[in-house]
Amino acid sequence: MRNIKLLIEYDGGNYAGWQRQDDQPSIQEELNNAIYKVTKEKIDIIGSGRTDKGVHALGQVANFYTETSIPGERFKYSLNPKLPDDIQILESEEVEESFHSRFDACMKKYKYIVYNNPQPRPMYRNFSCHVRKKLNVEDMKKASKYFIGTHDFKAFMARKSIVDTTVRTIYDIKIEKEQDFIIITFLGKSFLRHMVRIISGTLIKIGQGKLMVEDAKKIIESRDRRKAAKTAPPQGLFLEKVYYEVEQKNYYL
Amino acid sequence: MRNIKLLIEYDGGNYAGWQRQDDQPSIQEELNNAIYKVTKEKIDIIGSGRTDKGVHALGQVANFYTETSIPGERFKYSLNPKLPDDIQILESEEVEESFHSRFDACMKKYKYIVYNNPQPRPMYRNFSCHVRKKLNVEDMKKASKYFIGTHDFKAFMARKSIVDTTVRTIYDIKIEKEQDFIIITFLGKSFLRHMVRIISGTLIKIGQGKLMVEDAKKIIESRDRRKAAKTAPPQGLFLEKVYYEVEQKNYYL
Repeated sequence: MRNIKLLIEYDGGNYAGWQRQDDQPSIQEELNNAIYKVTKEKIDIIGSGRTDKGVHALGQVANFYTETSIPGERFKYSLNPKLPDDIQILESEEVEESFHSRFDACMKKYKYIVYNNPQPRPMYRNFSCHVRKKLNVEDMKKASKYFIGTHDFKAFMARKSIVDTTVRTIYDIKIEKEQDFIIITFLGKSFLRHMVRIISGTLIKIGQGKLMVEDAKKIIESRDRRKAAKTAPPQGLFLEKVYYEVEQKNYYL
Repeated sequence: MRNIKLLIEYDGGNYAGWQRQDDQPSIQEELNNAIYKVTKEKIDIIGSGRTDKGVHALGQVANFYTETSIPGERFKYSLNPKLPDDIQILESEEVEESFHSRFDACMKKYKYIVYNNPQPRPMYRNFSCHVRKKLNVEDMKKASKYFIGTHDFKAFMARKSIVDTTVRTIYDIKIEKEQDFIIITFLGKSFLRHMVRIISGTLIKIGQGKLMVEDAKKIIESRDRRKAAKTAPPQGLFLEKVYYEVEQKNYYL
């Protein structure tokens, strides 16, 4: 059995998320269907992790097994015409049979994009979170430091999630302002469900002056979801990169 | 009666075009409905010109008459929450009663955006025309010169159009390459239906080497729609600006 690794870009706007569902379109199912059209093999593709409804990916990674002899790098060309134009393969390659997109992922980079201007803009609406009032980016930067490191992020997890532990490690958070966009980049080993969006929402609230910089620390320590801000909307979130070979102990953006 | 001028941005992807239609959503109808919600006045807003199904605008201009006393600049704030998020007002102001968006428009700027890379990209699909094969931009630039000036553009008009004359004046065309994007900017007094997209399609075909630079001249002279290329797809086209006060005789980009 050959193991094929895919690098995938998608606009999540039309999907209920990565994970296959019975009654709603999902990225995973679209990929399964395209692979079936090419190979006639019924597979269930393995993703590096789920992305939620409406969340985008610039570099999602997934793998699947095949009995065909199609060369790894050709899968990209075979699959793309069978995929909707909002999901496309950027790279495909054959990898070792042991490679597992989820278990082997050792780091992920996410970007959360805020469009910070009083004017709503149709062209940006699907790819950013619109915040009208001017944010205090310096306060957001200061507050972001509290999230870096290994913490119990229970306050920043979607309520209904079931996990062994709510402890996670964020290697770095970088906040950049480019014209009217504020880009919050997260680098971490792994993230709880909604964690990037709840932290982003909390940083936005700090930037709005509705929470103080030091509240970030207090909310982390509270381990209480109700203390953190609302989950920021999905269209601002992009899974940018999944890392599989990381040798140092700490990483910086 | 007060006359209100609007500057409007829209993502045309969800609409059958500017013009109101019986059975399909249109930009004009959405604006009429929003104005009704705010003023309780049934009006039919006047646009600077129609944009076709799927075409975008960064700066469409329109005007309407009202008996209300709402200040001109407040209309933007009243209308935006009543509009869908893919149509939003950028500016509103009260203008002289004689101002007419269409009759008074003396120049328009359009941009046609080509994404020129073998890789299809979900994030660009709705805002550019995807051309895989590397285009010869120098040839496109040379060919574009033939279109500048006053010509009979009959070969570059949608077949079923009914007009008094097919003579139009293009003041300038500029072609720029920015990374993998080729941006064709048109500045003209007015344009025939599909004219910008048929010229763009013809320039793309010249860039692909499927037509020669000099064919541009021959196609113009032929006045034969069949000689020109197919109409380039609408999602690459943006109405960028409508001009109302132009005093010189020629204009350059």
